[in-house]
Amino acid sequence: MNHLKKYALKDIPHYKVHGRTVPGACPLPLFFSGSAVELNVSGAELWADLEVSWENLEMWVTVEVNGELLSRQMFMPGTCSLCLFRGMNPETVKNVRLTRELQAMTEDEDCCLLVHGFQTDGCFHPVPKGKYTLEFVGDSITSGEGTYGAVGEADWIPMYMSYSRDYAKMTAEALGADAFLISKGGWGVLCGWDNNPHSNIPSRYEQLCGLCCGKRNESLGAFAPYDFSTRKTDAVIVNLGTNDASAFQQPAWHDPATGETFKQHLNPDGTFFEDDLNRFKKAVVSFLEMLRRHNPHAHIVWCYGMLGYDLTTAITDAINRYTAKSGDHNLVFLQLPNTTAETVGSNEHPGVLSHQRAARVLTEYLQDYFSKL
Amino acid sequence: MNHLKKYALKDIPHYKVHGRTVPGACPLPLFFSGSAVELNVSGAELWADLEVSWENLEMWVTVEVNGELLSRQMFMPGTCSLCLFRGMNPETVKNVRLTRELQAMTEDEDCCLLVHGFQTDGCFHPVPKGKYTLEFVGDSITSGEGTYGAVGEADWIPMYMSYSRDYAKMTAEALGADAFLISKGGWGVLCGWDNNPHSNIPSRYEQLCGLCCGKRNESLGAFAPYDFSTRKTDAVIVNLGTNDASAFQQPAWHDPATGETFKQHLNPDGTFFEDDLNRFKKAVVSFLEMLRRHNPHAHIVWCYGMLGYDLTTAITDAINRYTAKSGDHNLVFLQLPNTTAETVGSNEHPGVLSHQRAARVLTEYLQDYFSKL
Amino acid sequence: MNHLKKYALKDIPHYKVHGRTVPGACPLPLFFSGSAVELNVSGAELWADLEVSWENLEMWVTVEVNGELLSRQMFMPGTCSLCLFRGMNPETVKNVRLTRELQAMTEDEDCCLLVHGFQTDGCFHPVPKGKYTLEFVGDSITSGEGTYGAVGEADWIPMYMSYSRDYAKMTAEALGADAFLISKGGWGVLCGWDNNPHSNIPSRYEQLCGLCCGKRNESLGAFAPYDFSTRKTDAVIVNLGTNDASAFQQPAWHDPATGETFKQHLNPDGTFFEDDLNRFKKAVVSFLEMLRRHNPHAHIVWCYGMLGYDLTTAITDAINRYTAKSGDHNLVFLQLPNTTAETVGSNEHPGVLSHQRAARVLTEYLQDYFSKL
Amino acid sequence: MNHLKKYALKDIPHYKVHGRTVPGACPLPLFFSGSAVELNVSGAELWADLEVSWENLEMWVTVEVNGELLSRQMFMPGTCSLCLFRGMNPETVKNVRLTRELQAMTEDEDCCLLVHGFQTDGCFHPVPKGKYTLEFVGDSITSGEGTYGAVGEADWIPMYMSYSRDYAKMTAEALGADAFLISKGGWGVLCGWDNNPHSNIPSRYEQLCGLCCGKRNESLGAFAPYDFSTRKTDAVIVNLGTNDASAFQQPAWHDPATGETFKQHLNPDGTFFEDDLNRFKKAVVSFLEMLRRHNPHAHIVWCYGMLGYDLTTAITDAINRYTAKSGDHNLVFLQLPNTTAETVGSNEHPGVLSHQRAARVLTEYLQDYFSKL
Repeated sequence: MNHLKKYALKDIPHYKVHGRTVPGACPLPLFFSGSAVELNVSGAELWADLEVSWENLEMWVTVEVNGELLSRQMFMPGTCSLCLFRGMNPETVKNVRLTRELQAMTEDEDCCLLVHGFQTDGCFHPVPKGKYTLEFVGDSITSGEGTYGAVGEADWIPMYMSYSRDYAKMTAEALGADAFLISKGGWGVLCGWDNNPHSNIPSRYEQLCGLCCGKRNESLGAFAPYDFSTRKTDAVIVNLGTNDASAFQQPAWHDPATGETFKQHLNPDGTFFEDDLNRFKKAVVSFLEMLRRHNPHAHIVWCYGMLGYDLTTAITDAINRYTAKSGDHNLVFLQLPNTTAETVGSNEHPGVLSHQRAARVLTEYLQDYFSKL
Repeated sequence: MNHLKKYALKDIPHYKVHGRTVPGACPLPLFFSGSAVELNVSGAELWADLEVSWENLEMWVTVEVNGELLSRQMFMPGTCSLCLFRGMNPETVKNVRLTRELQAMTEDEDCCLLVHGFQTDGCFHPVPKGKYTLEFVGDSITSGEGTYGAVGEADWIPMYMSYSRDYAKMTAEALGADAFLISKGGWGVLCGWDNNPHSNIPSRYEQLCGLCCGKRNESLGAFAPYDFSTRKTDAVIVNLGTNDASAFQQPAWHDPATGETFKQHLNPDGTFFEDDLNRFKKAVVSFLEMLRRHNPHAHIVWCYGMLGYDLTTAITDAINRYTAKSGDHNLVFLQLPNTTAETVGSNEHPGVLSHQRAARVLTEYLQDYFSKL
Repeated sequence: MNHLKKYALKDIPHYKVHGRTVPGACPLPLFFSGSAVELNVSGAELWADLEVSWENLEMWVTVEVNGELLSRQMFMPGTCSLCLFRGMNPETVKNVRLTRELQAMTEDEDCCLLVHGFQTDGCFHPVPKGKYTLEFVGDSITSGEGTYGAVGEADWIPMYMSYSRDYAKMTAEALGADAFLISKGGWGVLCGWDNNPHSNIPSRYEQLCGLCCGKRNESLGAFAPYDFSTRKTDAVIVNLGTNDASAFQQPAWHDPATGETFKQHLNPDGTFFEDDLNRFKKAVVSFLEMLRRHNPHAHIVWCYGMLGYDLTTAITDAINRYTAKSGDHNLVFLQLPNTTAETVGSNEHPGVLSHQRAARVLTEYLQDYFSKL
Repeated sequence: MNHLKKYALKDIPHYKVHGRTVPGACPLPLFFSGSAVELNVSGAELWADLEVSWENLEMWVTVEVNGELLSRQMFMPGTCSLCLFRGMNPETVKNVRLTRELQAMTEDEDCCLLVHGFQTDGCFHPVPKGKYTLEFVGDSITSGEGTYGAVGEADWIPMYMSYSRDYAKMTAEALGADAFLISKGGWGVLCGWDNNPHSNIPSRYEQLCGLCCGKRNESLGAFAPYDFSTRKTDAVIVNLGTNDASAFQQPAWHDPATGETFKQHLNPDGTFFEDDLNRFKKAVVSFLEMLRRHNPHAHIVWCYGMLGYDLTTAITDAINRYTAKSGDHNLVFLQLPNTTAETVGSNEHPGVLSHQRAARVLTEYLQDYFSKL
């Protein structure tokens, strides 16, 4: 690699960061699945200088060249240089994207991925912005859990979580848009799948990345308020409610340390207990207010259905309440087709066929919406 | 045809009627698209004795043998004998269905189709009931308008309306169910596409077939109250709201004779005027009450979206209101994917690809629902 | 129909005939499946004046408007006026095609379809020629046997034979080409499926339509030499050999009247008996010579495989022999994918999915070929 | 990794090697694309101990767990431990396959991949044999060149060559078969794409792996005669001829060192020069004799067409000559659909859609063939 020139990220004249980040950070943390560095670069060869850490949940990364996925691999903790391509025509400019495949992890305080820089014998060229800016806010569905691995797998491991086969990626690509993701498996609007009331996305939405933990991530700025003014979002796609629906079916959550307990209840006839449904709806209304506050011009698309339609009318009722209260009509409810035996992936989650189907409905909706602006 | 025996329908020991009808009627009127006579019959040859009348909107009929469509044709007024098959192995039992392709027509008071009987050299065998009984209540989408004919066609003619490529047929077949249809292009829950407040399906739902007109149809019993006790419906699929959404965009309807006028309004900012939206919602609530009254055990699936999602939250709000008022939770809102340039048919209506996509979502939903009973 | 003007075909200024015919004939016989009259016509309404005759094998006809199939129906013997469309915008010009769905029939000497003329309130407009002229020469596959009707059907009846779902139609449409068909179920290059040596297409290829019989057809000119100079064929697609392969598996054919007998033999090990294979190859060589004689500039594509690959190397050997003998390289062998349980139709023949797959391979081949001219 | 036990490959009680190899070798070289080690293993974690070397053409490897691809990555020269999975339920038995993605390389004498052993906290279980044993003999198509990377890419680099999206893999999986591959981009039956007469697969077929070079590979036994008795092949699929066809279009090959020259010629009219075509045919005949000698019971399927049909009749003529000479009928010619603009991949080679289409034709053929045994 002596023939290559080593660049710290901050010394690279042109690069594009995908996903929420601290502008200009070097090394650059990639906090979320879908967070990426994208380059347009000439030269025969390109390497990335990476730093990876984790305690128990390993990091996964993909490499794309000219829009095509070429590698997907697991990374052990440590620093490394990863060859992104070699042996190519040095004259042509290649579009290269190095992407975090794995969602943010609250379960592993060491879990982080840093891009220090790149090495190449080529030159860097400008990377244009996308046609639109989309933010996807979600749970394990948006984290692509289940899109890799065999049907019937039941291990909750990073290997099966992916941005590379995710409806968010498919949608953004079809629209020529830039995507920001903020998603975490098991979390909801009001509470998590297990009734844990702390596993709610709204409580972390305003942080740069509140969905990780640990000193290292803190020092990287993860918990600082996110500066929403650094981007202008055209649409916010929320895909939440699936874990809130689960909570009704699950036993109560107890925190043995604090004695705190939480439970969403069903009535004896199997319908949702109204008070509990109401606090879910209130959480939706509040979250919509928060989303609007930080994304004043964005079209909000609340998606739901890829793992069941149970809270459809609760969500739409909350949307109606929010609109009645705020006068804001710039939002919509969009049902995505439920996952079936034909479209399921690993871990009883939507497989790639389910993501393709959802992406098609969502893409068509957004194409239609944007075409009318 | 001397070798064939001629049977009046009433003398045929086994036959099955699809769609709403007067039990035992002979000749048998087929009022709706999808209304059909189904036979299991041996013999080399089978003919149907039909009577057709219309003034300006011609009748269309399809013939299926063993579940496969073999002919689709236009009928002129008059009586005729139609050969359904000939030259077949006389020993085997063939399943044959003669189906009205065309929706009920309020625009032509002569429009009717009567089955007088059949002629065959074979014998009639029992026709089993379907696994489920479904009723589809809808507008032009459910009448299959646009599923035949080239993209770009703009004539409102029976030739382009069809049961044979309709999502209702696809869904019923996939589920092994019997389908009843009641649908009329241009009509809505509160009013028609043109703000005509009389073009509302609920006002006709309780008649055997209120969606036709004229003395002839009256004499056939079309306007008599429908005896809902003659069937036990497992699910009622409502696909209405599309024309109610149109009405907001269209000029007011005036009846020059009575001076009556009607208009659903938009606010200056393009949102729905709240009072008008409310009367739509009330119409939905009332219709749900009517549907429940006549189908006490049926699962009600309110489908919407094949021609736009505009009234999604209005419909779901009405569903919520109905549930709050009635305590009835045995209903659901199901969004069907919108029609796009790739899936559109003639007359700017959903094409066969859109119907297939809708049928898949609906079929999967019902399969899941029935599997949990 | 008093408002319509009745035109004898010969008085219509613009119409296009598809398939082999006698130029200017009126009434016009449609001898082959795919034979058609095509019009571009304005007006609200169009009717065809037809004459149909048959003794035991009934006639089937389709109607297309603006390239979309709208009706398919059986015709009883007699004359009739068939409404092709009505109620349309009188100003627009519609493209209409009335097509014979049924292959020529040697089994019914009365079988014929005549177009006498049309009735309309509109005007006739020129119908452009296709981009290319293709001739398809084949057997039951090219006659579309099996493309209608349920899998498992075993009756040999016209109802299951169709041009409307045939690979020849699909290919011609994809290429914007005009198609001539000459095909007959059960026939081969050397002999028929049952070893009948008279059931060979080459013996009839040079007649206008040698694949029918009877005085009526004779009087219509069917057996006269075909005037190949009336067209300039860009490609001749031969899809023969399937019945020649069957013959090896079938018992000998005997003509009790003449005592004549014929049989293609297998060796005891199941391979083809060489002498018999050679006479098949000679028949192929001779037929290629005949095809070239009458289509001097056409690219000849010998297709094979939709019902088995058994004679692949026999056919290619014959092609090689023909080329060695003639120096003619303007021909090619193209294997079409075999029919499987997933793609089979009625009568154990290729279903519509098999025809689609074959049409794709053939279309791609011809697109590539024509693009290099 | 202290909790894991390290096993040399030879100490592992159960493992299966895919592809040609020296039985019992440890470390085990994986010479060809598709060569792999397959394990059934319990435990939470599994690592592979690998040794990689190359000078200029980098190694690529994939990992599958329970039949699903989970990673694809480039390897730098050196030894390394690669984590194949971690964090899984230790009780379940996982099926794991570590596969060489890259074809054998004559262009890089250091290019090799060795499996030294594995590390795990689990136990090894038997790996059953496949239902059938298939050998695929081919060129760049069989090496999967073009199945990764964007359409329009033109670099000849390992990154774009793959077994993981290859028709050979798809076919073997669909049949439940074990696959042996021997393939090399640019090579033919008589000569390479550039007329190099040394680039012919038959000259290397009898070596274990004659398609690589260098001392290291020699010491691993690559050039030793392959012991065909170690396997019983059910079918040999040859997919060659594409580069032989190219040679006719390319300039003569010259070896400046030896003065040797070679050229397959076209006639002035663009047809193949007969003498040159004949030496191609002779090469095919000789190769068939060689294949039969070493695979006495195998069904030989000569596939052709994924990059053009030009040598179809030359190949079938050679097959006929071989059969005439040998009396061997246990072989067949199978055309695979040509690659089109819709199905092309990188480097103007068949993309994954073209491989899927070819695999379907080939799989269907072999299913039918095996079902009749």
